Amino acid sequence: MTFIKKLNQAWEVNDSLLCVGLDPSWEKIPYHLKNADYPIFEFCKQIVDKTHDLVCAYKPQIAYFAGLSAEDQLQMICDYIRDTYPHLPIILDSKRGDIGSTAAMYAKEAFERFQADAVTINPYMGHDSAKPFLEYADKGVVLLCRTSNPGASDIQDLEVNGVPVYEKVATMISEQWNDNGNCCLVVGATWPEQMRRLREITGDIPFLVPGVGAQGGDVKAILAAGQTNNGTGLIINSSRAVIYADNGQEFAHAARTVAMATRDLVNQYRG
Amino acid sequence: MTFIKKLNQAWEVNDSLLCVGLDPSWEKIPYHLKNADYPIFEFCKQIVDKTHDLVCAYKPQIAYFAGLSAEDQLQMICDYIRDTYPHLPIILDSKRGDIGSTAAMYAKEAFERFQADAVTINPYMGHDSAKPFLEYADKGVVLLCRTSNPGASDIQDLEVNGVPVYEKVATMISEQWNDNGNCCLVVGATWPEQMRRLREITGDIPFLVPGVGAQGGDVKAILAAGQTNNGTGLIINSSRAVIYADNGQEFAHAARTVAMATRDLVNQYRG
Repeated sequence: MTFIKKLNQAWEVNDSLLCVGLDPSWEKIPYHLKNADYPIFEFCKQIVDKTHDLVCAYKPQIAYFAGLSAEDQLQMICDYIRDTYPHLPIILDSKRGDIGSTAAMYAKEAFERFQADAVTINPYMGHDSAKPFLEYADKGVVLLCRTSNPGASDIQDLEVNGVPVYEKVATMISEQWNDNGNCCLVVGATWPEQMRRLREITGDIPFLVPGVGAQGGDVKAILAAGQTNNGTGLIINSSRAVIYADNGQEFAHAARTVAMATRDLVNQYRG
Repeated sequence: MTFIKKLNQAWEVNDSLLCVGLDPSWEKIPYHLKNADYPIFEFCKQIVDKTHDLVCAYKPQIAYFAGLSAEDQLQMICDYIRDTYPHLPIILDSKRGDIGSTAAMYAKEAFERFQADAVTINPYMGHDSAKPFLEYADKGVVLLCRTSNPGASDIQDLEVNGVPVYEKVATMISEQWNDNGNCCLVVGATWPEQMRRLREITGDIPFLVPGVGAQGGDVKAILAAGQTNNGTGLIINSSRAVIYADNGQEFAHAARTVAMATRDLVNQYRG
C-alpha cells in the first residue's frame, strides 16, 4: 500500500492527525530500562504499544539512534511497528539531501534498509537530489519547506521578488516534483499565516507539522490554516511532550495520556 | 590540533589540495575483495595506503556505508586513518541539518562517534541548526553553499534583490556563523565565476570543491577563481575518478596514479 493511502487510512481508523516522534535520548529514558538488552528499542516499543490506537504515524528520528550507535535498535523498532501495527506508516526523520548517486544510497537506507514508508529530506540541493527518493512512487517524500525553529528565517524567509524562498520551494515541489503524488511538506506550527498560504499553493499535499505546543490556541490556529476540506491533510508531530511525559515505571501510560489529550485537542478543531 | 591547522599542515606537507572521497559502492569494488571479512573497509584502507602522501584530506561519504548497513566499517576506516596517518584530516560527508537538539546528536555522530575532524552540513534550517556543530571549535564545519549538481540552481540561484541565495548564505556564514573560525563552504567546480565572487565575499575561508573533472581547463579556471593568496584555500575533491580508476587486483595502484596526476595538475595552477 502506498504511504499516502496508509496515511489516509490511519487518519480515519484512529481518528487522529497525531504523529508521535520517537527521539530516544539516553539521558531521558527511564532509569529502569537502562539495563535492558536493547533499552532504546524497549523504550520505543512500550510507547508504541500504548499509543498505537491514537496516532496516524510514528516518526523515528535517526539522529538519536545514530548518536548512540544504535542503528540496530532503529531497525528493531521499525520492524516491530511494521509487523505489529502494519496499518501505521513509519516516517523516518533523517532530512537527507545529496547529489543523485549519493541520494540513491540514502533512499536505500530509508526505504530498503529500514523499510520506512516515508522519509524527510532537505530540498536545498534541488530536484535531482530529490529524484532518487521521489522515484519510489509508493513511498512518501517529506520535504523541508518552512521549519519551526528560530533560524528558519535565515534562508527560508529570504524574499525573491516579494515571495519568500519557502513559498518558491512549495510551488516548485507542488508543480514540478510531485509527479507520483508522493510529496509532503514540513511546515512548522509557529506561523499559521504562512501555513494558510502554503495550503493555498499546494492543494491537498499533506503537511508534517512540528513545533506544536500544549497550547490550545496554537492548535486551533494550525487547524484553521492547514487542514484540508475533509478535515485531514496534517500530520501533527509531538515528540518530547509525549514520550517524556514521565520518566518512571509508568512512562508509557503517561505517554498515552498526553497523546490522547493531544489527539482530542486537535480533533476539537477539525472541520 | 584544530581541523584548520591540520588542513593547513596537510596542504603543505603533501604539497596537495586534493581530497579523496571514499564512496564505496558494492557494485564497483573489486571482485577479489568481496569475500574479505570487511570488504568495504579493506577497499578504502588500500586506497588510503596508496594515496596518503598525495592528499590534503579524506572524505568518507556516510550514505554509502549507511546504505550497506556498514557503519562499523566506516568506524574502522576512520580509526585506521586517524591512527596511521594522524596528520591527515577526515571530513565526514553527511550533509546533516536539523533543529538544535537533533543537530547536537548529529554533531555527536560525526565528532564523537566517528571522531571526524570536519563534517558537511546543510544550512537550509539556519543558524541555530548549525550552532551545535559550530560549537565544536576545534572541528571544521563545511556548509553547503553552491553545489555542483544541475538542480543546485533550483533554490541556490534564486535571486534576492539581485543577489543569489547562495551568496546570501556565504555572506551570512562568513559574517555571522564563523566566530570560531571553523567554517568552510561547499562550492562546486561547475561555475568558476561564482567561485570567484564567493572568494571575494568570504576572504580565506576554505572551499570544499566537488565536481572537478579530468579536464585541465576546469582545474585552471577553478584555481584562478578560488585559491587564496598563498596558493591554498581549496579542498579539491575527487571520488569516483580516483577510487574506481581500475577494478582489478591493482585497483589501489591505479588509484594512486590518478590521484598523483590530479594533484600534479592542480599544482600546475597554484600561485
